[in-house]
Amino acid sequence: MKKNIFFNRDIFHNKKREINIESLVEIFNSFIINFRIKNNFFIKDISSLENLRDFSLLFLDNQNFNQIKSLNNICVITENQSIFEEGLFQNIILVNDFNLTYVQVLNYIYGHEDTSDYFDDFVIVNDSYISKFSEVDQSVAIAKNCVIGRGVKIGKYSIIKNNVIIKNAIIGDNVIISDNTTIGSTGFGFNIKNLGAKNLYPQLGIVVIDDNVHIGSNCTIDRAKIDLTYIGTNSMIDNLVHIGHNVQIEENACIAAQTGISGSVIIGKNLISGGQSGYAGHIKIGDNVTVAAKSGVTKNINNNSTVAGFPAVDIKEWKKHIINQKKNGHK
Amino acid sequence: MKKNIFFNRDIFHNKKREINIESLVEIFNSFIINFRIKNNFFIKDISSLENLRDFSLLFLDNQNFNQIKSLNNICVITENQSIFEEGLFQNIILVNDFNLTYVQVLNYIYGHEDTSDYFDDFVIVNDSYISKFSEVDQSVAIAKNCVIGRGVKIGKYSIIKNNVIIKNAIIGDNVIISDNTTIGSTGFGFNIKNLGAKNLYPQLGIVVIDDNVHIGSNCTIDRAKIDLTYIGTNSMIDNLVHIGHNVQIEENACIAAQTGISGSVIIGKNLISGGQSGYAGHIKIGDNVTVAAKSGVTKNINNNSTVAGFPAVDIKEWKKHIINQKKNGHK
Amino acid sequence: MKKNIFFNRDIFHNKKREINIESLVEIFNSFIINFRIKNNFFIKDISSLENLRDFSLLFLDNQNFNQIKSLNNICVITENQSIFEEGLFQNIILVNDFNLTYVQVLNYIYGHEDTSDYFDDFVIVNDSYISKFSEVDQSVAIAKNCVIGRGVKIGKYSIIKNNVIIKNAIIGDNVIISDNTTIGSTGFGFNIKNLGAKNLYPQLGIVVIDDNVHIGSNCTIDRAKIDLTYIGTNSMIDNLVHIGHNVQIEENACIAAQTGISGSVIIGKNLISGGQSGYAGHIKIGDNVTVAAKSGVTKNINNNSTVAGFPAVDIKEWKKHIINQKKNGHK
Repeated sequence: MKKNIFFNRDIFHNKKREINIESLVEIFNSFIINFRIKNNFFIKDISSLENLRDFSLLFLDNQNFNQIKSLNNICVITENQSIFEEGLFQNIILVNDFNLTYVQVLNYIYGHEDTSDYFDDFVIVNDSYISKFSEVDQSVAIAKNCVIGRGVKIGKYSIIKNNVIIKNAIIGDNVIISDNTTIGSTGFGFNIKNLGAKNLYPQLGIVVIDDNVHIGSNCTIDRAKIDLTYIGTNSMIDNLVHIGHNVQIEENACIAAQTGISGSVIIGKNLISGGQSGYAGHIKIGDNVTVAAKSGVTKNINNNSTVAGFPAVDIKEWKKHIINQKKNGHK
Repeated sequence: MKKNIFFNRDIFHNKKREINIESLVEIFNSFIINFRIKNNFFIKDISSLENLRDFSLLFLDNQNFNQIKSLNNICVITENQSIFEEGLFQNIILVNDFNLTYVQVLNYIYGHEDTSDYFDDFVIVNDSYISKFSEVDQSVAIAKNCVIGRGVKIGKYSIIKNNVIIKNAIIGDNVIISDNTTIGSTGFGFNIKNLGAKNLYPQLGIVVIDDNVHIGSNCTIDRAKIDLTYIGTNSMIDNLVHIGHNVQIEENACIAAQTGISGSVIIGKNLISGGQSGYAGHIKIGDNVTVAAKSGVTKNINNNSTVAGFPAVDIKEWKKHIINQKKNGHK
Repeated sequence: MKKNIFFNRDIFHNKKREINIESLVEIFNSFIINFRIKNNFFIKDISSLENLRDFSLLFLDNQNFNQIKSLNNICVITENQSIFEEGLFQNIILVNDFNLTYVQVLNYIYGHEDTSDYFDDFVIVNDSYISKFSEVDQSVAIAKNCVIGRGVKIGKYSIIKNNVIIKNAIIGDNVIISDNTTIGSTGFGFNIKNLGAKNLYPQLGIVVIDDNVHIGSNCTIDRAKIDLTYIGTNSMIDNLVHIGHNVQIEENACIAAQTGISGSVIIGKNLISGGQSGYAGHIKIGDNVTVAAKSGVTKNINNNSTVAGFPAVDIKEWKKHIINQKKNGHK
């Protein structure tokens, strides 16, 4: 289980500079309304509410943050006056444009594949490009025209077929990834207030694919914004499947072709998902859930449920609805 | 705004020969029932009803053509006896098989990527193939295993990731195109009367992607049949999205994963389109429209509408329907 | 019509060893409960119920097998005690774990692309990798970054665009395959009792694409488990289409973008399939069927039908249902 893996962000996304909080305040002066800094430190990382990291920035929108405890080495950046005034945080910066500050501060610190100063360097092995900063086990079979980017690790006996792109990802043992699939690409982190490719929220997380997973052809699995997109052990993913950023799928999932899972969906063990099914963002699916083909799942689903339709409901209810529909059709 | 860009078709699709109308009549003799030629000229281009071009052929099916004005330098080809007889057109050829004439005449004049005499020539730059007949700005970052075809222009600071194919396209500044995406491929221009790859309507248009657009991984954007497929400034397109030939999308579109937009759909500004939504061909979507995930849009949609379901209706109506369905399910 | 083509499995999947039935019984001792061998022979191939082959293994689950006639040179492997006892088969092995025996016996005999001992060898032709064990007609145009695997045949005047992967496939004349498409990849043959990439049922069949077929960009067509996945003459397939393993499609199909056809679907002549439609596995679609866009076809469909909706019904019924829904929405 690699779900709680620690990863060194800088191996994947080239950190361009080390700055401390006081310098940050100076440089991004024009965005800053107010600030309080109790302990100045060099910024080593970024945090999410789920994963607080030492010496990091935490961008806090209007989310619930009462569970946050050890905050000594974190600097909060917020647009929210009341969060600032409340005084819970020792290090906090109040900004006038949360979205833009998010984009510009992180792009100042990190190069990543959506900026022009992203850096990688490759060797050619068996007609594929393997980053010098990757760790591919010697037993791995990599076919033609693949690109294995910086930071990527691939475990024992995995098979990477042709024209596969793997970036910003940790791949377990005995994983098979089929042709033309893209792993670790940029999530749909668009910034509704400031559209356009330049204003994309930097996607600085990674993808983790656990042991013994099979991923089909022409799939896309996006890396997380800050933490992990995770695919659990033994999962079987068919062709043309899309898995959005921050998605977490526990072990033994079977996901049929053309399924789409939106960002930040959390899925339990033993999912069976029919073809062309879709999942709305930020929902939670329990263990042992079956989702019929072409379902559109819009809400949390309890353990041991079978759902169908759009919006997806218990399959018994769905069948009743289909029978009613049929009756009405014959009136 | 590059929507009304002029493009030189011959840069993209290699013109094989220059012929004049009288030669055309001779060569395609067996297809021709009757003809009137007032001013013989060398055929320089082809026209659509929306974009008449000088010294061009205009294939006229049974469409409305009353708005056509300057017709001196156009030669109409039609199967429609009454169009021929009406006498509106100075240069007109009446043929016995419109579809086959379309295919054979245009394939006689143009090489394109669906004929064996298509011609391109490449240099290798940083492990990608760049056509000698393309113009890629020096600031553009192109990753591995890409193919940039003849005629393609790419503007400043754009980022083209790995294994991306760009053909028959003009790409603006600050555009990001993610891995394994195909731009400018052949539209679904099949010829229902004469099926088969050989009888495909030649797709001789291009794709124009305006500044600051982000396109995800494993997408397909087909080139137009004669004019442009157009993606407006600042648009954000997620993974595995299909955009058909002749589609026009104005600025600021946000299109989630696995959306499919059929040929010739016209979309206004500020579209928000949920994942797995689909659009029937030849419809018109207004400005500021939101299309919920998994919708199937089958008709024109007014400005400022929010629609859902299949066939897509106003989202309030859709919600009522879902509530009714739920009630009936509990009977 | 190449549907009934004979193919030599060993050309596609490298046979690792020749063993006879008695050796098999010895080696897989631990799986075997009982066996009867009347004529010991070297195992040359595998059979399906539809295609019995000489000197082959036939894995028999609980399927109907009464039609089987010439069985002299076939060895049945089953988990089903009553099949074993019935005495119909001269050569039969009763095993304690059908799924695992299937996987392990076939992986013992064959290397294939999901095992680490798969073998191929390539030459570079015009910047694509062409297997030394393939037969590509000289008139075929293959663009950049393609991989043409072992055993593949490609007929006259076919056009293979960029970054196309073709493995385990026979391609006819005048076929066009567009960019980033994957042909012959592994079907979704997951083993529900023993999940994980290692336990995938070996997919030892091929894909046959008949003459004059057009396949769009970023499609996936999986090879069959034992026999053929077949696409008939003159068929037109749009972008991002998924065709599962063992699917058979007769001539003149028009299949719009993002359609998904599950494994083992049998489709007649002249199919028209709208975009984003889906087909449940193992169903049978007649000749001259039209499937509206976004339909989910769950049952067999008769000749000359037009269906729509999910679950797909006759389009007249579907329209009535939509009208009823509209009325109820206005209540």
